[in-house]
Amino acid sequence: MALGVSLKRVDAEAKVTGRARYTDDLSMPGMRYAKYVRSPIAHGLVTRINTQAALQLPGVEAIFTYLDVPQQCFPTAGHAWSLDASKHDVADKQLLTGHVRHHGDGVAIVVACDPLTAEKAAQLVEVEYQELPVMINATSALAADAPRLHGGTSNVLKQHALKGGDPDTALAAAEVLVAGHYQTQVVQHCHLEGVISYAYMDQLQRIVVVSSTQIPHIVRRVVGQALNLPWSAIRVIKPYLGGGFGNKQDVLEEPMCAFLTWKLGGVPVKIELSREECFLASRTRHAFAVSGKLGVSNDGILQAYSLDVLSNTGAYASHGHSIAAAGANKIAYLYPRIALGYQATTYYSNLPNAGAMRGYGAPQVTFALECMMDEAAAQLGMDPLELRMKNVARQGDTNPLNHKKIHSAGILECLQKGRELFEWDARRAACLNQSGPIRRGVGVACLSYASNTYPVGVEIASARLLMNQDGTINLQIGATEIGQGSDTVFAQMAAETIGVPSSAIYVISTQDTDITAYDPGAFASRQSYVTAPAIRQAATELRTKIIQHAAYMCGQPSWALDVINGEVVFKTRPEQALFSVQQVSMSAHYDQEIGGQLMAEVSCKTRSNPPAFGCTFVDLTVDIPLCKVTINKIINLHDSGQILNPQLAEGQVHGGMGMGIGWTLFEEMIVDEKSGIVRNPNLLDYKFPTILDLPDLDCAFVETYEPQSAYGHKALGEPPLISPAPAIRNAIWLATGVKIDELPLTPKTLYRHFAQAGLIE
Amino acid sequence: MALGVSLKRVDAEAKVTGRARYTDDLSMPGMRYAKYVRSPIAHGLVTRINTQAALQLPGVEAIFTYLDVPQQCFPTAGHAWSLDASKHDVADKQLLTGHVRHHGDGVAIVVACDPLTAEKAAQLVEVEYQELPVMINATSALAADAPRLHGGTSNVLKQHALKGGDPDTALAAAEVLVAGHYQTQVVQHCHLEGVISYAYMDQLQRIVVVSSTQIPHIVRRVVGQALNLPWSAIRVIKPYLGGGFGNKQDVLEEPMCAFLTWKLGGVPVKIELSREECFLASRTRHAFAVSGKLGVSNDGILQAYSLDVLSNTGAYASHGHSIAAAGANKIAYLYPRIALGYQATTYYSNLPNAGAMRGYGAPQVTFALECMMDEAAAQLGMDPLELRMKNVARQGDTNPLNHKKIHSAGILECLQKGRELFEWDARRAACLNQSGPIRRGVGVACLSYASNTYPVGVEIASARLLMNQDGTINLQIGATEIGQGSDTVFAQMAAETIGVPSSAIYVISTQDTDITAYDPGAFASRQSYVTAPAIRQAATELRTKIIQHAAYMCGQPSWALDVINGEVVFKTRPEQALFSVQQVSMSAHYDQEIGGQLMAEVSCKTRSNPPAFGCTFVDLTVDIPLCKVTINKIINLHDSGQILNPQLAEGQVHGGMGMGIGWTLFEEMIVDEKSGIVRNPNLLDYKFPTILDLPDLDCAFVETYEPQSAYGHKALGEPPLISPAPAIRNAIWLATGVKIDELPLTPKTLYRHFAQAGLIE
Repeated sequence: MALGVSLKRVDAEAKVTGRARYTDDLSMPGMRYAKYVRSPIAHGLVTRINTQAALQLPGVEAIFTYLDVPQQCFPTAGHAWSLDASKHDVADKQLLTGHVRHHGDGVAIVVACDPLTAEKAAQLVEVEYQELPVMINATSALAADAPRLHGGTSNVLKQHALKGGDPDTALAAAEVLVAGHYQTQVVQHCHLEGVISYAYMDQLQRIVVVSSTQIPHIVRRVVGQALNLPWSAIRVIKPYLGGGFGNKQDVLEEPMCAFLTWKLGGVPVKIELSREECFLASRTRHAFAVSGKLGVSNDGILQAYSLDVLSNTGAYASHGHSIAAAGANKIAYLYPRIALGYQATTYYSNLPNAGAMRGYGAPQVTFALECMMDEAAAQLGMDPLELRMKNVARQGDTNPLNHKKIHSAGILECLQKGRELFEWDARRAACLNQSGPIRRGVGVACLSYASNTYPVGVEIASARLLMNQDGTINLQIGATEIGQGSDTVFAQMAAETIGVPSSAIYVISTQDTDITAYDPGAFASRQSYVTAPAIRQAATELRTKIIQHAAYMCGQPSWALDVINGEVVFKTRPEQALFSVQQVSMSAHYDQEIGGQLMAEVSCKTRSNPPAFGCTFVDLTVDIPLCKVTINKIINLHDSGQILNPQLAEGQVHGGMGMGIGWTLFEEMIVDEKSGIVRNPNLLDYKFPTILDLPDLDCAFVETYEPQSAYGHKALGEPPLISPAPAIRNAIWLATGVKIDELPLTPKTLYRHFAQAGLIE
Repeated sequence: MALGVSLKRVDAEAKVTGRARYTDDLSMPGMRYAKYVRSPIAHGLVTRINTQAALQLPGVEAIFTYLDVPQQCFPTAGHAWSLDASKHDVADKQLLTGHVRHHGDGVAIVVACDPLTAEKAAQLVEVEYQELPVMINATSALAADAPRLHGGTSNVLKQHALKGGDPDTALAAAEVLVAGHYQTQVVQHCHLEGVISYAYMDQLQRIVVVSSTQIPHIVRRVVGQALNLPWSAIRVIKPYLGGGFGNKQDVLEEPMCAFLTWKLGGVPVKIELSREECFLASRTRHAFAVSGKLGVSNDGILQAYSLDVLSNTGAYASHGHSIAAAGANKIAYLYPRIALGYQATTYYSNLPNAGAMRGYGAPQVTFALECMMDEAAAQLGMDPLELRMKNVARQGDTNPLNHKKIHSAGILECLQKGRELFEWDARRAACLNQSGPIRRGVGVACLSYASNTYPVGVEIASARLLMNQDGTINLQIGATEIGQGSDTVFAQMAAETIGVPSSAIYVISTQDTDITAYDPGAFASRQSYVTAPAIRQAATELRTKIIQHAAYMCGQPSWALDVINGEVVFKTRPEQALFSVQQVSMSAHYDQEIGGQLMAEVSCKTRSNPPAFGCTFVDLTVDIPLCKVTINKIINLHDSGQILNPQLAEGQVHGGMGMGIGWTLFEEMIVDEKSGIVRNPNLLDYKFPTILDLPDLDCAFVETYEPQSAYGHKALGEPPLISPAPAIRNAIWLATGVKIDELPLTPKTLYRHFAQAGLIE
């Protein structure tokens, strides 16, 4: 069995020895470097720009201002294209702008022989601005007289409403009704490898972009759109990647790199954003304001809930309203036997541009829902775990919004298993009726998450298998390894289906749009789910070809043969090898009459999208005078169907929990309300948790078998991040009696709430 | 129609603008450079080697001597592997040697930070030799007491004999019998781009070799053999190539580059041979000594011929006996209604290593045969053209050696067409009975040539088609573009079969053994013939998929639809487009329910090998006192089946004729018989003809249709070089009455013969 075992990452040695080549490790003779001239204000119009002094700096090769770039707008969101024009991403971005909409917006760019010269020259570009009113929240951005950031009649980017059943009636009739207002903050992805790409022109004057991106094929399309070139005139190559978390599910500097090489006759031009630029001018997580209501019967049966979301997308649309829209779709599986109302509005502001980030709207919405669940439990006088156990999805339930049947649901078992592992009852009992400055609390929260984007997006994936002479097999996939371990799991899938050891599979980790079949990329926790059918189909084809050629070699019928652990055997005598697959491959290559290299390639679409589930149990101590939270124990439990590689799955859960704790207790991009200036765009002032700030992270799995899945598995990449925040908030409430309905739960926030509650002075 | 038209080379602009990136245009950070320490003598044993002084030169990183390299021998010939061990290429080469066998043999190699330092250090390595007797020809190499170059009982590498019918009886019975002895010289390929490659190790410690090679997949295998590594641990990438002509159908510096990077922890190491090194230490054309007999009836019906070949392979086997063996196979189609005897012996000597070169044995053998044909015509008192017309192959004839039927034969029509275009009868009449110092002559000679290596070699090829969203199609082929224009013709084939304009096909010109399906490479004039079935099959599959998806889009049955010129149409209304293929591709990519990227990939084998035919007519003037030959008119006529791209086909013919004239009238590597020292290993002293030295080159085609061929075509790459030499020799004979049975026909040779004949003093 190749699946279900903890195969060591296929790139482990390459990465720990430093041999893996990332975008910045690649170089070309004659490489040039570009640096932006960025707006120091959050909103205004450029009134004068003077590049003369900068151009005179030795080593400067060119400067382009907003007047020199194509005056057309393009979208940047990493979504697969849609045949339905109404579903196209909003195209509101230009390469540079004279109307700066956020702190750090780009007005010009300098190309020079080295990065320092480019940086220095960028500082020499003189820019004057006419300042405009700054709007960083809904109050100012949605005011009737607010200046329009992108024309139109308001700063509303988009809004929509969804209903499953009749939530209004159900809420009105509910025996217990709770309501709340929940606010989440802006955070940044803080991937290890920054935003970096370079571009050059090839022999046929096609533009080649090498980029640290999650979405090479989408980058190809958007560069084509931005420069008005045929998509196939662009080639995008993705080397090893040091993390993306959704930030690189946006098209970032690739169109600019492409533009620069295009204008400069094909010389290679590299753009690497500094960490400060990553904060200001890549993407962030949307701040949500969620107003919710939740109705429950006296015996704890959930009747309905409604959520009203205001999502702040910042200066440009990027993924725009998709994030707010996705929130509802992802959580609707969790408590399915209800009526559900969901409304969302996404608006522009002068914040840095928000985009995709791990969880994609679900963390914010789940925070509101799972806070309300504890609220309801309190009103019912019920253990919040009990309330959840009564209401979470069961196999056979139907999603209230899309009416899809749930074929696998292990969330109840997750809660049961967590109850035991965490010793919930004992721990909770110990937390009741505390006093004093140091108090303990426990909390629990649940999540559901879809396994891809279908039917909102087209779900297409690819796999190609080429068998080498020595019996090893090269696996080329459209899906992108971005650190999550997908290459390793893909190798396991192929090995499992072909019948060879995982070590026989060599994964081509680089995607190259010229030769890698189409796949939109790494996002939506989709890759293991939607690539699996392509791999399974291709691997089945390859296995059939191995057997067919072996049948020719030994003069036996194909149906009598099997491939097991790299050997062709009689099905009835599996212990006796007829040939190794290497022998079969040698014959297929070199037999003079029959054969051909053994290979298979598949591009296919997925039309199922089952939900993964999970939950967090947390035990924490609140030091009330210090406003400090210390996590004593935290455990995530997940139903992601079959676990393909336990160690990698644990890694995903640990990473997500850490990121979730960071979002909950540490991180916040602080933006001055008046000026729109970002106050902490660096890893010193932005309090990203280090390994020393994190508790031990426990996790466990409940393995269901999802019948719609090629290998029984479901999403796992994003879910672990979602449930820690409400669990922690619920635990703090239990510990202190103070309900805090906003994030982050930093000492600053706690201080305000504890003071308000009279716990401290 | 995409085929049969002169589509501009797909790489034309890239190459004429200098944008095409060749191996030397690629660089990597930290690249190191290696230079050999080469033997100044042709035969001897190293008795002492001292690298101390060299190692002390700043910038020198490592020196490896013959004692430091794997002590195992590997083969270098660019032949596909065989499952039959008896057919394996002779493995007699080590990376370096202490037994130097030719002038320039490598005894050590220096790696340094730049090429000049490496060169300087190589000169500082002190080597002492014990000299051994030098053998550069059969007399010395095959003497009973000759030292054995590679052990064994003699310096004979291999010998074999073939018979078709009973040539001895037929010759004995022939009414007219002619006999002769023919000698050809050593020449070098003189490709524009030298021998160059570099290697590095990738993230997984696999060795990546980037090389100017005709045979990337074979290089992969041989590097694996040379270093005793699994073949899939090697990756070979072939960029644009500036000519190979068979020299790069050998594995040259790739194993050494791989060895060096392997030993030096993965740093990139480049080896570029100087032109002098190319002459001494890459490969050359075998010198043949051919003894022939030919019998003909009084009415000019050829009865039989026999050829006895002695082939001098120099210091190592390389392609070894294959060259001598191939000669017979390639010409046996020309005059098929005969008995044929062929014996060949290949022997080692202290000449530089001979290997594959355009024509692969056929030029030498054809020179002998076509000289004898004129001899027979003279004895019969018959026009030599008439004699050939009586005897050349007709459709339906059978090859006397392999008994394969000839399904297409246009050689008679070539001779007829040439007779008219060249005005043979009038020109020949003007040449009879001349006197004086300046005389004219005309000559004619024929050739046949196979279209690949089957059944001697396995003939396997691959094609992959990936349709981009914009309806363009990426074509990936295992066959290698080496300057001959194959990429262009492949684009035309794909366009023709799919039903799109040729401009819609983008050919991936780079082969990369990790992702390019197996194909042994460019040699044997095979590529257009053996790749065509793979392209045709893949293109047919892709076309079917386009139609199937279009049928889904419009709700019509597939059988009603056709693809014409990039548009899907009703077969019955081809003038009305239903969709463009772009629309179909967009839908296939982005329809949410149905589809997948449209693609097809095929690896397949070819089991037919039809002969191409051709002939040369030449009119020349001999200045007897100056021993100088001036060509007045020369025309090649070819039956290569259907002509796929007339302009490229002409280019191939022009190139081959020029190379043939160079072989005949200009070129010779001069090796000192006593010392084995090469006297002219450079382009100043080696008289390679320039464009100014060549006459106008005319050509014409007789288009037959080869039914076994995917597009009706046959070989064309090598044939044009074959027939000029005997035609020129025959014309000089007619002009002067002097038969010269050796090459080259330089003034030096002519002087000797003219003096012997008493024409000059």
